[in-house]
Order: sequence, then structure tokens, then C-alpha cells
Amino acid sequence: MAYGLLKGKTGIISGALNEKSIAWKVALKAHEEGARIVLTNAPIAMRMGEINKLADICEAPIIAADATSVEDIENLYTKSMEHFGGKVDFVLHSIGMSPNIRKGKAYGDLNYDWFLKSVDISALSFHKFLQTAEKLDAINEWGSVVALSYMAAQRTFPFYTDMAEAKAMLESIARSYGYRYGKLKKVRVNTVSQSPTETSAGTGIGGFDKFFDFADKISPLGNASADSCADYCITLFSDLTRMVTMQNLFHDGGFINTGISEDVLAFMEK
Amino acid sequence: MAYGLLKGKTGIISGALNEKSIAWKVALKAHEEGARIVLTNAPIAMRMGEINKLADICEAPIIAADATSVEDIENLYTKSMEHFGGKVDFVLHSIGMSPNIRKGKAYGDLNYDWFLKSVDISALSFHKFLQTAEKLDAINEWGSVVALSYMAAQRTFPFYTDMAEAKAMLESIARSYGYRYGKLKKVRVNTVSQSPTETSAGTGIGGFDKFFDFADKISPLGNASADSCADYCITLFSDLTRMVTMQNLFHDGGFINTGISEDVLAFMEK
Amino acid sequence: MAYGLLKGKTGIISGALNEKSIAWKVALKAHEEGARIVLTNAPIAMRMGEINKLADICEAPIIAADATSVEDIENLYTKSMEHFGGKVDFVLHSIGMSPNIRKGKAYGDLNYDWFLKSVDISALSFHKFLQTAEKLDAINEWGSVVALSYMAAQRTFPFYTDMAEAKAMLESIARSYGYRYGKLKKVRVNTVSQSPTETSAGTGIGGFDKFFDFADKISPLGNASADSCADYCITLFSDLTRMVTMQNLFHDGGFINTGISEDVLAFMEK
Amino acid sequence: MAYGLLKGKTGIISGALNEKSIAWKVALKAHEEGARIVLTNAPIAMRMGEINKLADICEAPIIAADATSVEDIENLYTKSMEHFGGKVDFVLHSIGMSPNIRKGKAYGDLNYDWFLKSVDISALSFHKFLQTAEKLDAINEWGSVVALSYMAAQRTFPFYTDMAEAKAMLESIARSYGYRYGKLKKVRVNTVSQSPTETSAGTGIGGFDKFFDFADKISPLGNASADSCADYCITLFSDLTRMVTMQNLFHDGGFINTGISEDVLAFMEK
Repeated sequence: MAYGLLKGKTGIISGALNEKSIAWKVALKAHEEGARIVLTNAPIAMRMGEINKLADICEAPIIAADATSVEDIENLYTKSMEHFGGKVDFVLHSIGMSPNIRKGKAYGDLNYDWFLKSVDISALSFHKFLQTAEKLDAINEWGSVVALSYMAAQRTFPFYTDMAEAKAMLESIARSYGYRYGKLKKVRVNTVSQSPTETSAGTGIGGFDKFFDFADKISPLGNASADSCADYCITLFSDLTRMVTMQNLFHDGGFINTGISEDVLAFMEK
Repeated sequence: MAYGLLKGKTGIISGALNEKSIAWKVALKAHEEGARIVLTNAPIAMRMGEINKLADICEAPIIAADATSVEDIENLYTKSMEHFGGKVDFVLHSIGMSPNIRKGKAYGDLNYDWFLKSVDISALSFHKFLQTAEKLDAINEWGSVVALSYMAAQRTFPFYTDMAEAKAMLESIARSYGYRYGKLKKVRVNTVSQSPTETSAGTGIGGFDKFFDFADKISPLGNASADSCADYCITLFSDLTRMVTMQNLFHDGGFINTGISEDVLAFMEK
Repeated sequence: MAYGLLKGKTGIISGALNEKSIAWKVALKAHEEGARIVLTNAPIAMRMGEINKLADICEAPIIAADATSVEDIENLYTKSMEHFGGKVDFVLHSIGMSPNIRKGKAYGDLNYDWFLKSVDISALSFHKFLQTAEKLDAINEWGSVVALSYMAAQRTFPFYTDMAEAKAMLESIARSYGYRYGKLKKVRVNTVSQSPTETSAGTGIGGFDKFFDFADKISPLGNASADSCADYCITLFSDLTRMVTMQNLFHDGGFINTGISEDVLAFMEK
Repeated sequence: MAYGLLKGKTGIISGALNEKSIAWKVALKAHEEGARIVLTNAPIAMRMGEINKLADICEAPIIAADATSVEDIENLYTKSMEHFGGKVDFVLHSIGMSPNIRKGKAYGDLNYDWFLKSVDISALSFHKFLQTAEKLDAINEWGSVVALSYMAAQRTFPFYTDMAEAKAMLESIARSYGYRYGKLKKVRVNTVSQSPTETSAGTGIGGFDKFFDFADKISPLGNASADSCADYCITLFSDLTRMVTMQNLFHDGGFINTGISEDVLAFMEK
């Protein structure tokens, strides 16, 4: 069901890899809600992904960009504005990768070059998206920027290693830049802290399956799906949430504020 | 501009006193978005207010209810379900009053009977709304309950005295009942922590004007208006936010996460 | 091992019921650290408890006080100051009781008179301790007031029912009165959020045992004992923590910031 | 006044530059409380500082270490253990520097190489301290590691630019490594979030003076001094706080939980 919530709006959506990606769902939904969009992803991700299919459905151009490259991001905004014939209304940052996780390094044996790479890709890229947008004046007044985060920014999940730090930084950037961009151009900046989700990114993490089940048992509504996360992002891009900024918003079926659930208690009993 | 976000939905809205009330704006907006609503307020508030005008615009019945009376709340739900010919999809709790504030008692000279009255009216009433709804099975699956809160639940504002405690309790009820109702019926429960707002409730508090200005200077987007708060509540009642529960959601133009603003720094300089 | 951390100090300690009580351990430790203390508890609790034994060890008078009675609290401070020949340096509030829990009422079936009683005993009593102290000017400059709280103030634990709300309010009072008393007399006010503890109060709660084990498995250091909690309280009464105020301090072996532990993951696997 | 709280303990203290440094005060106090300590700082900081004076008073060797160099940190632990004839009981991490702040770059014009340098020096160095200690098994069971943080990790202070992100990451490392080290060796890891302090580091930040005054006016106890911060750190190194871990502990005179103070309200009035 579509409401036309984003009618007349334009947006850039990063991170759509395949049909399981949250960004994929956001793109579909934004399109359904009347937005014109541009898709972007890292050149390497695009080779693996099926983004062309999504581009067809959404009638969206794809502009490749390495999220750690300011030049690529400049190009992304410039091309997007050319395509739209004007500025951008919303941006989704759905980008994260940790070489330490990929290579199975424990938190007590991190490779520090990789750590800085995790930070650069997963957190600093968000600042680059924002600073570049500001410099190019690429976002309309009352625009909305959302990055996807994860509750490891608040709590420890042993298998998440240095992505915990990257997400903590990502959320800090949302606060810091949210202040700045709000003051300058009424642009709001938020992060959405999403349930563990069965995306390619999620399932690449060791221990993910067990944790997925645990979170599902703790959360009174169960884990939030990628689809419902897309719904939520749409509200944040819409004009109905203009005064929400500098926030980390939990979209998690109630996980974060549940200390223990009856389901887990019952499980402990066995 | 309306989107039909609440088309086919039914809701109960409490606390609309006059055109400045947040609840008034929520009622108008819910009506515009396609919902059928019932209005409620305390009998005494209704005598002072202009709620009939609102009822006319929204084509909504008014069902008086003292929010501290379980019987009245039972009647409210029963009559509402009769009116709607079915259960309720959303509820707005916008109820608060502190006799200690009214009578100008300092925080070091509280009257404890009045303290319990503040708690009963401003916080416990929320539990009564929820427990009664559960007992009558009055809320549809995936329903949404929102109460209006205030950042005094997290930070001290000297003039807010015992309402700080009432709001802390209100937010705790949202977490506790959100867990329970989520588990039972997929109903979500949240609070919205709104900027200081020039309503009758707000302006009745000593020091309000100065604080209103301070908050406006701190928040990068300025204070959120009652109108924008209503917009935000609509998103929380809609189907697009189904997995958000047990949260206190700041709708404050960025106040809560701003340590100091350049405007206040400049002010300090003088 | 004793350091003389509280040498020359005087304090009031409430809530010591028997040897398992946290307050009991705090009293012992405060005595060892050189403080002179007064013990207090509700008349009814004193009949059940073995407080006389503690009073002997600590050379402390016992002054009975119903924590909901302002008159009793006035008497407590007045008599304590007479005993000490001067004002009080520290106060421990370790008081809580929920008739709803005692009678096994579910959170969806609360008795509201009892709810207000839970609030009065477990939270409002803390305000009464503070307001009465202020009115009698019973606490020395740089004095320290600590109340024992529980993480149900932040997260939902289904079996904890209305004590969650009482603890949320307790922590709010610490913030609100901490501001006021700090400004007036440099008195600091904090709460300590302690691990589930095998005291009489703790074990009276249904599901406690299972939760105790769960918390122990989540916390990297395991659950904090009553003894270690007493140690921590001593630091908060000492002169080494003078600038810590309005805080809720977790003393929980790391529970609150752990999302999931390897032990619980391993358990989920079975 | 000394209590012998750290009698028999050994510790490493980084970051003592001159008499104003918090680390300087911690070193003095730790020495007074009976600890044997090792001092460390970056080679360049040591040239500017007066650390030899401190070393004399504390009878402490100085072991230079670049906090971004794993090799230097290995050498620091190895030499320290040689000096102590055993493992270390506590570590103070008081290290932070932002080239972007030094060079006056606005938050919308950050140099990203410098950003990564801020992160490496101010946050990642903490992980290196911990990972290296674990690998060398350099910290005794029930040891305590503290890093100094700042409330910019939670709230935006426009002049603090990328140090906000570094501090957010620092606090995340305390959580993540606190979990790991607690599990492995009962070592606790915390950060202390200190008031703005008139140290060389603090006063190097633009707008610091005005903010110092603002924070002093907001906090009911005023800003916490470097001396009182040292007192607090001593409690965290002592055996009385063994179950406190993975926490960010505010040592701020009440700043963080104060929304507005009467002093600032009065100021707004003028």
C-alpha cells in the first residue's frame, strides 16, 4: 500500500546489494511512495550484486561510488543533481564492512590497519557524505539523512568486534553533523538501529544465527524485518518527521529495552 | 497535505483542551489522514475547553472520562468500540497535571498527597488506559499507543518539580506495558518527548518563557511546534512504524543531544 | 581490610533486615571504615529482622521509622543528630516493597491502591528522606545520599511489575533532588543499580532464581554480591567522590552493557 | 589525607604533561595512596612537559611511548613489569589529540587524514593498551583500567569537532574490551567523563572559556577540578569498585543530568 509520502522528493540510496538488503527495500518503497531516486554502491559490490534489476524497477540511475572517496561522493552528488534537475531531499547511508570480521580476527587480536579501514568504510564515510553534501549544497532545506546502525553501539556483542566502535562513531557523527546541518540548512540527520537482519551483511558475522534467535526471543514483537525497516525509513524521509534530528532510533521490536523475556526465561529452565 | 496514512483506522484522543493543545492538532491531523476518532477529556477540562468545536470538525463523539477512574476508562473504551463498530487502532494519552506546580510549591516543599495526585493523573492513568484496554481487548493487533512526555524525565529542570518524576514513571510504563502488550497482541507503546510547547499546560509552569527561549536557542532546528508533533504522532499511529515499541522518542529539534549551541555561547559572551 | 575512609563521619543506614541485606553489609563496612552510624528500619521489619545483632556490632542505636511517614523521618534525623552531636554525613536509602509483587498480581492486573503504596514506600520515601533532611538542615555540606536501585528502571523484567516504575521514579528523584541539594548545600545524591542479589527482598520475587542465573551468565564479572555493593557504597560516602551527583551508577559486573555473552550463546545452542 | 587505598598496587599512568594535567594529579594521589607507579607519555610531550619533577616526587620511572605504536606499548608493559617485579594492577589512559582542532578546522571542513589520526591517538590507542596488555598478560586479576573521556561523546559541543567521535569510540572500546577482559581475567575497564578542566588539553580548544563558565553555571556543584577527578580515579583503581565495569562514569558536578539551572535562567533574563 502506498500513500505518496515522498511524492516530488528525490533521494540517494546506497548499499543495495541484493533483494535481502535493507537498502533494496528502502529503494523499492521510496519509489512506490513517489520519490525519484539514484542508487549507489561500491564498484566491487555492484559486480556481485543484482542492482541493475532494482534500478529497472525503480527507474533509477546507478552511480558507482567508493564511500571512502570524497571524489566519488562529489561525483555522486553532482550527477544526482544533474539527473534530478535539482537538489536531493533524502539520503540513505547503508554502508559497513569490517575486514577484521571478514577475516575472523578476535577482538583481542585486531589488525589495526583493518580497524581504521572498518572506521573509514563504516563510519567516516557518513561524515564524507555529509561534508561533501554541505560543500556542494546538495541537500534541500528540511532534507533528511539516515544511516543504518546497530545496537552494538550501546551494548557488547562479542562477535561484532570492531564494528561496535564503527557504529558508535557513526551515531556520534549523526549527532555532531545533525547539529551543524540543522543549524545551517534545516537538514536532519539520524541513525536507525535495526534488529539483526538476515541480509548478506548480517549473516556474514559469526554467531549471527544464534544471536538472531536470541534477539527474536527477547523482543516482544520479534525481530524487525528488512521490509518493516524500509517502512520506517520512509517516515523519516517524509515531511512528517521534520523535527526529529540527532537521534539514534531503535527499530527492533522492543529488544533494546527488554532485560529478559518470558521466552528466554523458559528456555533457561530447560 | 494529507496522505491517507490512517485510512480505515480508529482512535481515541485524550487531552484536547483548545486550539493550542497538541492533542487538538493530533485529532485534526488524524481526521485528515482518514481516521475515525473519539475525543475524551476530564469533565472539568471539557467545561473550560472548546472541544465541541473540534468534535464538529472531526465528526467525533466526545466521551468524558476522568483519567484516574478505571470505570470511566472502561466506559470510554466500551462506548468507543460501540461507536466504531469494532476495536481501536490507536490511542493518544496527553494527560498531565501537578497540583504542586499549580500551587507553586518548590521541590523542597512538596505536598505528598498532591505528589501522589500528580502521579495518579499524569502517569498511573497511562497504565489504567493500557490495563483496561487489555482487559476489554479493546485494541486491534498492531495497534499503537502513544503518550506525550517531556525531557524532564531525563534531565532536571528546576521549575518542573514533581512532574519530572511523573514523566519518568510514564516512560517506564511505556517500556513495561509495551513489552506485555507487544507479546500479547502486537500492540506497540511509546512516548514522545516533545519540545517545550506554548500550550495551556506548558505556559502554566513558572519560568516557562525563559526556558522556551533557551531550548529554542539550543536546538539546531528550534523548538518543535504542536503542529509538527501531531505530524510525528501520525507516523507512529500508521502501519509504517509497527516495530517501534517501548521507546521514548525525542521530538525536539535536536535539543536533547546538544550540549551547547553557538547561539547560547554567543549569549554567554555578552 | 579497612582504610579509615569514613573516619569522623556519621551516617544513617536504612533497610538492614538480616545478614543477607545489602544495608547490613553497608552498616558493617561503614563501621569498619570509621563511621558512627544510626540504623533504621520499619517497625514491622524490625520485628522480623535481627537488627539488634547488627546494632551491637556497629555500636549503633536503632531508631524505628516508617519510611512513608514524614513525622517518623523527622524523628529519625532529630534523634540521629542528638546522638551524633551534629549533622549527618551520609544516608543509605535501601527501602522498597510492592504489595502487587507480594500478592502475585500480574502487570496487566495491578491493584492501583497497591501501586500507589509501592510508589510511596519505594520511591516517594526517598523524597521524604531528602526534603525532611533539607528542612531540618540535617546533612553536612558535601554529604552523600545513596539509594539502591535496580536495572528494571531502564529495562523490562516481566516479573518485576510495578517496582520498575518505582525504581524509575527513585532515580528521577536522585536527579531532581541532587540538583537542588547540590546547589543549596553541596550534598550529592545518587542511586546504585545493583545486580540481582540473593537478599530477602530479591528472592521474594517470582522467577528470581532463573533471572539470577541469566544475569550471572551475561555479566562478564558475574553478579555483584551484597558485600561488593557495600564496598562500592563506601566509596560513594567517602570524600573521594564529591563531584559525582545525580547519577545512577551500575554496580552489576557489566550486565547492563552486555547485549549477549558467549555463555548465553552457548546455552542457546543446546 | 591518605588512606592507603592502593597499598601494594602497581600502576601505569599516561598523559601527565604538567601540574595542571589530570594525569599528574592521579599520579601524585596514587603515590600518596601507596601505589608504585610508572609514568609514560609521548616522546614529544615529554620534551615540553615537566614530567621529571613528577617522577621525582612519585619515585617513578618514566618510560616514553607513542600511544599509537604497539611496539612502544609492548615495551612500556615489559619494562613496567620488570620494574615492578610483577604485573600491573591499574592503568590510566589520558591521551587525546585532534589535529583538526589544533589547526582550527571546522566540523564541515575536516581533513580526513587528520580525522583518522585523532581516532588513532585518542581512541584506538586505548584498544592497543588493552590488547597489548592481554597478549603480554600484563594486568593482574581484578585489575582496573580507566580512560578519561568527555561528555561530547553523548552531546554535541560545536567546538569539539572530531574529538566527539574519538570519545564515542573510546567509550565503546571500554564496553567491548571490558566485556572481554572481565571474562578472561576479571579486569575491569571504564571511562570517566570529566567536567571541562583547565588543563593544557582543554584550554587549547576554541570557545573553551565560555563553555567552561556555562558548564560551571549549569552544574549544581560547579565544574569538577582535576584534583577531585584524581580522587575519583583512585576509587576506581581500589579494591572497593571491583564489580564496576564497562561503564562511562560522569564526574561532572551534575552537569550531564541538568537540563537548565537557575543560574543560566537568570542569565537568560538579562
